[in-house]
Amino acid sequence: MTDITWNDYAALPLEAKCQYLARPEGDGMPYHTLFAQQFDREILERLCALANRIRFINKSKEGALYLKSVLAHKRAMLYFSQPSSRTFLSHLAACQILGITTGSVRDAATSSEFKGESHEDSIRTFSSYFDMIIMRSPEKGLAEKMAWELSNSDRPIPILNAGSGKDQHPTQALLDIYTLMRSFEKNGGIDGKTVTFCGDLMRGRTVRSLSYLLTNFRNVRQVFVAPQELQVPADVVMVLAKKGVDFEVTDDLKAAVKTSDAVYMTRIQDEWDSAKGASAKIDNGRFKFGAEELALLKSDAIIMHPLPRRDEIATCCDNDPRAMYWRQMRNGMWIRAALIAATFGFEKTLMNCGY
Amino acid sequence: MTDITWNDYAALPLEAKCQYLARPEGDGMPYHTLFAQQFDREILERLCALANRIRFINKSKEGALYLKSVLAHKRAMLYFSQPSSRTFLSHLAACQILGITTGSVRDAATSSEFKGESHEDSIRTFSSYFDMIIMRSPEKGLAEKMAWELSNSDRPIPILNAGSGKDQHPTQALLDIYTLMRSFEKNGGIDGKTVTFCGDLMRGRTVRSLSYLLTNFRNVRQVFVAPQELQVPADVVMVLAKKGVDFEVTDDLKAAVKTSDAVYMTRIQDEWDSAKGASAKIDNGRFKFGAEELALLKSDAIIMHPLPRRDEIATCCDNDPRAMYWRQMRNGMWIRAALIAATFGFEKTLMNCGY
Amino acid sequence: MTDITWNDYAALPLEAKCQYLARPEGDGMPYHTLFAQQFDREILERLCALANRIRFINKSKEGALYLKSVLAHKRAMLYFSQPSSRTFLSHLAACQILGITTGSVRDAATSSEFKGESHEDSIRTFSSYFDMIIMRSPEKGLAEKMAWELSNSDRPIPILNAGSGKDQHPTQALLDIYTLMRSFEKNGGIDGKTVTFCGDLMRGRTVRSLSYLLTNFRNVRQVFVAPQELQVPADVVMVLAKKGVDFEVTDDLKAAVKTSDAVYMTRIQDEWDSAKGASAKIDNGRFKFGAEELALLKSDAIIMHPLPRRDEIATCCDNDPRAMYWRQMRNGMWIRAALIAATFGFEKTLMNCGY
Repeated sequence: MTDITWNDYAALPLEAKCQYLARPEGDGMPYHTLFAQQFDREILERLCALANRIRFINKSKEGALYLKSVLAHKRAMLYFSQPSSRTFLSHLAACQILGITTGSVRDAATSSEFKGESHEDSIRTFSSYFDMIIMRSPEKGLAEKMAWELSNSDRPIPILNAGSGKDQHPTQALLDIYTLMRSFEKNGGIDGKTVTFCGDLMRGRTVRSLSYLLTNFRNVRQVFVAPQELQVPADVVMVLAKKGVDFEVTDDLKAAVKTSDAVYMTRIQDEWDSAKGASAKIDNGRFKFGAEELALLKSDAIIMHPLPRRDEIATCCDNDPRAMYWRQMRNGMWIRAALIAATFGFEKTLMNCGY
Repeated sequence: MTDITWNDYAALPLEAKCQYLARPEGDGMPYHTLFAQQFDREILERLCALANRIRFINKSKEGALYLKSVLAHKRAMLYFSQPSSRTFLSHLAACQILGITTGSVRDAATSSEFKGESHEDSIRTFSSYFDMIIMRSPEKGLAEKMAWELSNSDRPIPILNAGSGKDQHPTQALLDIYTLMRSFEKNGGIDGKTVTFCGDLMRGRTVRSLSYLLTNFRNVRQVFVAPQELQVPADVVMVLAKKGVDFEVTDDLKAAVKTSDAVYMTRIQDEWDSAKGASAKIDNGRFKFGAEELALLKSDAIIMHPLPRRDEIATCCDNDPRAMYWRQMRNGMWIRAALIAATFGFEKTLMNCGY
Repeated sequence: MTDITWNDYAALPLEAKCQYLARPEGDGMPYHTLFAQQFDREILERLCALANRIRFINKSKEGALYLKSVLAHKRAMLYFSQPSSRTFLSHLAACQILGITTGSVRDAATSSEFKGESHEDSIRTFSSYFDMIIMRSPEKGLAEKMAWELSNSDRPIPILNAGSGKDQHPTQALLDIYTLMRSFEKNGGIDGKTVTFCGDLMRGRTVRSLSYLLTNFRNVRQVFVAPQELQVPADVVMVLAKKGVDFEVTDDLKAAVKTSDAVYMTRIQDEWDSAKGASAKIDNGRFKFGAEELALLKSDAIIMHPLPRRDEIATCCDNDPRAMYWRQMRNGMWIRAALIAATFGFEKTLMNCGY
């Protein structure tokens, strides 16, 4: 990102931007991780293999201590100006597994921003003390701007976008793909599967990202089940249409469940309501997964959810072997550890170590 | 806890519950630590010996580094939805001494709970990323419910109750016993001593727990000094009567001090007032420990306090050698380290290591 | 500080106090770091040399891992009751570089103070669990009182003042001197240079401290540029006059810039306004550094700022090689690591180690 001005960079289409975000070493791994679109099938498969590897090494105490030595000379900053215990803890745990020491700002009120400091200055501050910034922000595009700023400073360090506004949440998409890969490992992989999304498809950034990443696989059918007001946005549909993906937009969850290999439930994201209480007026009773839906689900299908959930999935499903959302959450920790290790150039070291 | 439903478990008497909380390895140490009642005399003595051991090992840099390697492959979550710097930092330090890496949620506002997530889901989240949960909550029985939930999930990890409501605070009771043991080490131990409790005996959970644990020792006399409105509850008294313990309920602190081996002062817990300011109307002038009480105290007796204090103990007592409350606090760190090490099955390793 | 009562100590002039704050080992390094006045030229030069050394060792992974072993047996408490992400993170990173494990309280609301605990008791609590306290407080003189208290307790541990009220911020002064030393390393050092301070000179504690420390060097000219209401206080001027320092008080930034070797810009500290909005009425348009001032600046001069900034320095200056404020911030991390290592007696170990 150093040979291009911000305005020229910002005007590029997403696909063209991605080359600027890759590691300069040319191994295809991301340096800054900002968009789900940075991950093509090869990178997805390499990251999933690396996550499996780290997971395996970590099983013994010896292996766990080895992992803790790999990046013990690095320090990461977790800058979460939007509250999120899950994403925060998952990234924290990923760092800890690799021996990275961390600092954090989890609340704008404890930070210097009240003294009138700009985001740019805050980020340069963090870059002074740390070797990576993992950031979550309610502001669309902030992580991207910060990545450009840092790349053009005299202390460039990688930025990992842990969620920016309604926009992008690339590591969530990664963990979703990793969960699908693991679930269908002995069942032909992701190719040819039917994935149903249900709930708030308009504002859930995870849906947007995962839908896109699934186009990296062959013959994946996508079904979108939502109340009309919360249906999947036109731009997502257009990408699918353009790529020749088989997809369906519907409001019949039960019918969709019967033919699904994965049902991806999501929460109504009412924190983004333009008018307070707007979401509460939507009749979403038919967009919940309960005992009836469970009965319709194929025996080798899975239920996913990015969590936190409210009542989209009845707790009676929680201990069903097809309920994958708890493992999905833990997968997030492993795939993030893989991404962070790869960002620092340790993919090969870990794939080839003696553990 | 896996061979019993929640309702069946919850209906058990406390004593019967305790067997479900022990380590499955059968060494008598707790797996989940929820109640002071889990500690019988043998376990108390083993934990105190282990705390002494850890303390000794930690004296040299070499030993401190060895300790930091013992549980370096483990990560613990400190989930404190009720504020408490002391208990938080003490558990944190205990983890750090053993090399455990930690994450924390110390404020419900930074957590996912505002998005409407249930406690159960939050706990399962934490269990995905960590190997132990140390939790403090204003909600009675929550830690217990969570322990049962986790034991019945596919990722059981131990829960350590760092205070639940007005109810239980088992590690506080542990550190109190440890302080008494150390103080009376060369003076015949705890057996036969007189322990006086003074202050808010109704709502102070530490009094309840310590009073119970003292029944594990022989001929310990217990004296309860409080204003009538804050006297020790009937159920505590009934336990003592049933066990044939010699006890006294009084409002005369000076008289009690003269015959005490330990005076345990407590703070008026006005945060639990049902009507705001109710406690302020109670005349508690006679329930404070100052210069006059100090003059009456035996030369080999001790003053304890769970802290934080307000004015129950005058600061003029602070540097008296009988003032044990600062050391009591530090004892908390060591006994918690012992408990955590034992929870993970490292009692023998530490007792027998070459340091 | 153990052979003197608090009242006798408090009545001493600052210079006489400093001897009480030095390490008892007599190597001249501070035990408690409370005042910029503790640093004479020799100590400043030794600390800067140590910072350079640590920085060098840290360049290799091997060296970084060695540094992390140096104080791996120590734990530090960061007690920040006044918000500050920069100072917090900088001290945190300094600890992490040396392998010190940390705990923190960054918000009075999560602490025990709401239960009515005194500062003294809080500090004794922290001292029970940690080996050093790094504290920032809005209360003038608090760190000093706490240092005395701890020195007279049975668990004395060092206190590092990370900013107390409008008063003292000694490590900021240290990092400013370190930045000047590095900047003028090949240009004759600090002796004989002209340093211009601009902005809120009345309330900026960094100005007060740096101005004082510069009197340790020969023939340093000091220029103070500010609106009348925010000019440098009389006591600072009196110290300079008494020491025969060449100084000037003016409101003409442009003229000052032309002859300066360092221009030290500061923010209007309106959080200290006695009447809300008072600062906003001051015309400070002439006290900002922008393109015009940059054009007047000598080619080998530097621009400094303690950060955070608002608009005192235009962002168009940020990538000018003379803009030293980003490196100044990073220097803070290194010099703090040096100070902490020296506090624990590791100066020689690090200066002489094989890296």
